[in-house]
Amino acid sequence: MRTTVGIVGAGPAGLLLARLLRRAGVDCVVLEARSRAGVEGRQRAGVLEQGAVEALRACGAAGRLDVDGVLHEGFELRFGGRAHRFDVAGRTGGRATTLYPQHELVKDLIALQLADGVPLLFGARVTALEGLDGGRPVIRYLRDGAEHALECAYVAGCDGADGAARRALLATGTARLHRRGYPYAWLGVSAEAPPSADELLLAAHDRGFALHGMRSPTLSRLYLQVPAGTEPDDWPEDRIWAELEARLTVADRPLSPGPISDRCVFPLRGEVVEPMRYGRLLLAGDAAHVVPPTAAKGLSLAFSDVVTMARGFAHWRRNGSAALLDRYSDHCLRRVWQVQYFAHAMTTLLHAAPGADAYERRLRASRLDRLVGPTAAAAEFAENYAGLPTEVPFV
Amino acid sequence: MRTTVGIVGAGPAGLLLARLLRRAGVDCVVLEARSRAGVEGRQRAGVLEQGAVEALRACGAAGRLDVDGVLHEGFELRFGGRAHRFDVAGRTGGRATTLYPQHELVKDLIALQLADGVPLLFGARVTALEGLDGGRPVIRYLRDGAEHALECAYVAGCDGADGAARRALLATGTARLHRRGYPYAWLGVSAEAPPSADELLLAAHDRGFALHGMRSPTLSRLYLQVPAGTEPDDWPEDRIWAELEARLTVADRPLSPGPISDRCVFPLRGEVVEPMRYGRLLLAGDAAHVVPPTAAKGLSLAFSDVVTMARGFAHWRRNGSAALLDRYSDHCLRRVWQVQYFAHAMTTLLHAAPGADAYERRLRASRLDRLVGPTAAAAEFAENYAGLPTEVPFV
Repeated sequence: MRTTVGIVGAGPAGLLLARLLRRAGVDCVVLEARSRAGVEGRQRAGVLEQGAVEALRACGAAGRLDVDGVLHEGFELRFGGRAHRFDVAGRTGGRATTLYPQHELVKDLIALQLADGVPLLFGARVTALEGLDGGRPVIRYLRDGAEHALECAYVAGCDGADGAARRALLATGTARLHRRGYPYAWLGVSAEAPPSADELLLAAHDRGFALHGMRSPTLSRLYLQVPAGTEPDDWPEDRIWAELEARLTVADRPLSPGPISDRCVFPLRGEVVEPMRYGRLLLAGDAAHVVPPTAAKGLSLAFSDVVTMARGFAHWRRNGSAALLDRYSDHCLRRVWQVQYFAHAMTTLLHAAPGADAYERRLRASRLDRLVGPTAAAAEFAENYAGLPTEVPFV
Repeated sequence: MRTTVGIVGAGPAGLLLARLLRRAGVDCVVLEARSRAGVEGRQRAGVLEQGAVEALRACGAAGRLDVDGVLHEGFELRFGGRAHRFDVAGRTGGRATTLYPQHELVKDLIALQLADGVPLLFGARVTALEGLDGGRPVIRYLRDGAEHALECAYVAGCDGADGAARRALLATGTARLHRRGYPYAWLGVSAEAPPSADELLLAAHDRGFALHGMRSPTLSRLYLQVPAGTEPDDWPEDRIWAELEARLTVADRPLSPGPISDRCVFPLRGEVVEPMRYGRLLLAGDAAHVVPPTAAKGLSLAFSDVVTMARGFAHWRRNGSAALLDRYSDHCLRRVWQVQYFAHAMTTLLHAAPGADAYERRLRASRLDRLVGPTAAAAEFAENYAGLPTEVPFV
């Protein structure tokens, strides 16, 4: 099989890229290791910056999002026994993010792609990327027990942090993987309980960070900072609710507890592959970088990569010039590092660092105080939280 | 001897307090361990926030400052081989700091105090503060080989980080000393060389921080980040200039070297005594807190304490109520921690942390990039650099 751009991975990044390429008249094929049901069933929170929503709208992929998406104009920040509303939209001239579950977005994009007739092969496990430094790379993959090859002009690696694309790029020895770990993890649980607030609640408590989000009128999603290395089994239901109560409640605003239906622990980390490209292979989204989840930036950052990449392919197809594709990595990395900075700063601000001394705790408390006042610090936080302006990627 | 407020220390904080108390009709006596020549000869850079200048003006102590002070409306920040002007005034609606050497300010305040007739005893070394939890504390001191006692209603501790007042307060066991060290120090030198620029130059180089200031048309003052524990003798003149060149120069803007007349190494640290008060003893300035020098906030923060304290004494004298004095520490500490935060953030941003990995170096570079753009991050930096607004201390 042959195509122009071989896309590895049918997550949000790969699917949006396919949609954008189709609109630009660039052929592509998407290969996805999992089944369609597996992809569509992978539940994830979805927080979209305005730029990401606009990109979806511009390519006709926001139909259901515009109906069911929930505008997220601010949140409640609780610390020191008090609740403070943080008005993101009010501090950014009306910019806001939109909450729309990631698996719903994936369903929308898959349906569009199948309607477009762009090949989307589920159950296709990539085994090798060959000839990346030449003009005709080949993607080798297994499907239904047989070996196949997809010949293309470029490979777009959108298969996540543990995927074949990042692995192949790092194996060339030409890129660096930057990593930052944290001495704590998140315990995420779903609770059959009506949400305790209309907006997202974030707590920066001395016992640790906590986050409360709504998933539906009868289902809440909650996260707790826990020590790195803790097991989900260490957290029986009573203990989870006691900890959530201790960190999240303020006077007169009790939580609404309920049965917990699932729990998992995951580490927090930041990662950046630099450069995000080798020869004819370009990485996007988690394949290129991971941010700690506190600022909920992963999805929007992936879309920002993909919009930049699609412009590069469109320019190459129209003008026969790879100049924009050659600048793809440099261009993306500017935003990637700025988002890494913000996600890191927000994470360290809201989490209790194990072993922090009193000086560090006071600095953190002072910073939180400043953030909820009418300060430039609050404006900066809001600007980053709402999403950095989308730059025109190429001049 | 008896007075209302016994002030320990004739540095800028103690002297301004004496001036403010005199204007409010509150008696005071200032005790200073050093000689007048010793106090007046202690050269220090002087950077005054607008609020500090206004406080001096309001009590008639800005005569010479208003003539000889140099308005400091911005600085040049150099990193990555490029120079960026950071326009503090332009980003804060015209707020700026004023450069006026601290020893000149001390001379002005001493002359005023002697003209006022307020007792100012040099060579008076405080040996004990007694009865702080009663209504009539006593300051015991040695002068001309004889023991003396000053009986007062309150003691204002303005004698610095190593002075008797902080020691006495900590000895009560009622306060905590918060401390933060840094894994680097500053080497400060004076050079007989014309300044290489009209404004302050700051360099955030991979080799370390460097700072270049003018003292006069023929004298420059320079600072280099050096490893903690280095000796001034490790830094011959050639090595200092080579390092300054490497960190500070950008294309077409060479430094003007010249003979180095003195050099000293000092550690960077942050310290806060909390609370800043015990009974009838109130600390101000370095006696209560120390900030790393990068943001040049020490002098203005001391003045902010002293203005608050003087308001408390004036209220107490007029209304017989100690309510404002009772809130003195809580009020001051809000600003103290905010300034600690900024000084710490500016220090870590501009210094090369020993052992920083590539991820941390990239985060820092990304933050510097953001700071020189038209961003809310730059506005926040400017707001803090120019000086936080002076809050009305008591309602």
